[in-house]
Amino acid sequence: MVADRLPISDRGLQFGDGVFETMLCLDGVPLRLDGHWARLQDGCTRLGIPVPAAARSHLLAAVGALGERRLVAKLVVTRGCTERGYKFPPDLVPNWVLTISKAPALPPELRAHGVAVRMCSTRLAREDAQLVGLKHLNRLTQILARREWNDEFHEGLLLDTDGNLAEGCGSNVFLVLGGRLVTPSMEHGGVHGIMRRSVLEAARALRLPVDARPVLPAELRAADEVFLTNAVQGVLPVRSIDTMIYAAAGPVTRRLSGHLNDLPVSTAPAGAIGNAP
Amino acid sequence: MVADRLPISDRGLQFGDGVFETMLCLDGVPLRLDGHWARLQDGCTRLGIPVPAAARSHLLAAVGALGERRLVAKLVVTRGCTERGYKFPPDLVPNWVLTISKAPALPPELRAHGVAVRMCSTRLAREDAQLVGLKHLNRLTQILARREWNDEFHEGLLLDTDGNLAEGCGSNVFLVLGGRLVTPSMEHGGVHGIMRRSVLEAARALRLPVDARPVLPAELRAADEVFLTNAVQGVLPVRSIDTMIYAAAGPVTRRLSGHLNDLPVSTAPAGAIGNAP
Repeated sequence: MVADRLPISDRGLQFGDGVFETMLCLDGVPLRLDGHWARLQDGCTRLGIPVPAAARSHLLAAVGALGERRLVAKLVVTRGCTERGYKFPPDLVPNWVLTISKAPALPPELRAHGVAVRMCSTRLAREDAQLVGLKHLNRLTQILARREWNDEFHEGLLLDTDGNLAEGCGSNVFLVLGGRLVTPSMEHGGVHGIMRRSVLEAARALRLPVDARPVLPAELRAADEVFLTNAVQGVLPVRSIDTMIYAAAGPVTRRLSGHLNDLPVSTAPAGAIGNAP
Repeated sequence: MVADRLPISDRGLQFGDGVFETMLCLDGVPLRLDGHWARLQDGCTRLGIPVPAAARSHLLAAVGALGERRLVAKLVVTRGCTERGYKFPPDLVPNWVLTISKAPALPPELRAHGVAVRMCSTRLAREDAQLVGLKHLNRLTQILARREWNDEFHEGLLLDTDGNLAEGCGSNVFLVLGGRLVTPSMEHGGVHGIMRRSVLEAARALRLPVDARPVLPAELRAADEVFLTNAVQGVLPVRSIDTMIYAAAGPVTRRLSGHLNDLPVSTAPAGAIGNAP
């Protein structure tokens, strides 16, 4: 059923009880759909939500029918509707919401010369192990972090409540440090991004040494290159973190973004163009 | 506008971006409304959501018009509707959803002899300080904890990710220990309940010594009495925590629940009877 409203008894609204995926779609095809779907399945399984298999074909059909050059598809899956209370019956039918919008424009100079980043004061929670890595619907931390700046920065980086570097508001972070690629292991919270995984696979293919481990914020100062990853913007070099300045798009960043070269720059304006739950 | 659906672009659904209150209503009047409203205002202020003042008069009118003996009113306030992304404009209009249902029946023997409680393995997150104490819409931890049992327990207790005793799934917890009333200070996460505050005020009035401090789970074993508090069920003695057995409704628990004596037992069945966003 195509609709733009959801019952108020939906547990996504009542509790943030669900997961989501945000996918870049090029020429009518969602990129890395297998990776996104695997994470969605993993999230649903860990939360005990049946995977809404029909959503995948709806997604493919909707994106294919629109056939635009660059779109973003966001799929939200919630546990479904119940009465008041955290308890839920075993046979509950999940709800899902698919929203398709034009992909945001990214000026070419940002990809070439890097983006300005802020270090946020909002801290990423140390979560229960069952939630670590999931792209779940409990996103208040990211919203609080995002309101720390307007448009003077492209992204904000978060430390976790233990003081380690964690991730960006809507991205993962990588450092090039002493010739090695380093990324926070995020054992206690954060989203294990699909593009982060692609970068780790690309690094293996390119025989770059990689460390996924706890990263201290002071290590950012020693890094030769820093870059961000997310599914919509791909690999994005960092030009500055507050007063720290980096050489724009260093050799490792360029090698990796060249290897993951399915991210042409578009100037299409952002804006919602359709909803299909 | 009275409706039972909300736009899919609502940020409560997309991100859990909002707060809620659950209030017991007796004979058409919400109990402790000033306390609930103060926490709602505090939550909205801390999250940067304008307080929807009209919701309070709607709540009073709806509960008064129904005039049932025992009702539960749940008010959800979300930041409102936006396009994709964590960013939000400064002039966003919040959405609110009021749901009124019959209060769940609590058998009199549970209030007299106490409830059986489980110690959950799901851990309460160590949150950013901006979120601590709020009844916000990011409730996945409570949902994961609640699915650890069916109906063999009345409630589950959670430790936080540091290993300290935190709270119940939908309640706060108190211990009577060496003649003192002890409750977790919850400096790093959890909900600062309205009934918890009423108990702390009642203890002061009754000149009971009180400690709000970090509590080790081992201290539960040494406690003479344990009780739970929430807005709907009031003060509820604990009979057992897994294999630990307590004397039913000890003297301190009885004194406090007597002092907070606005909680008659009802046998009305649970069930949603109205929605009014």
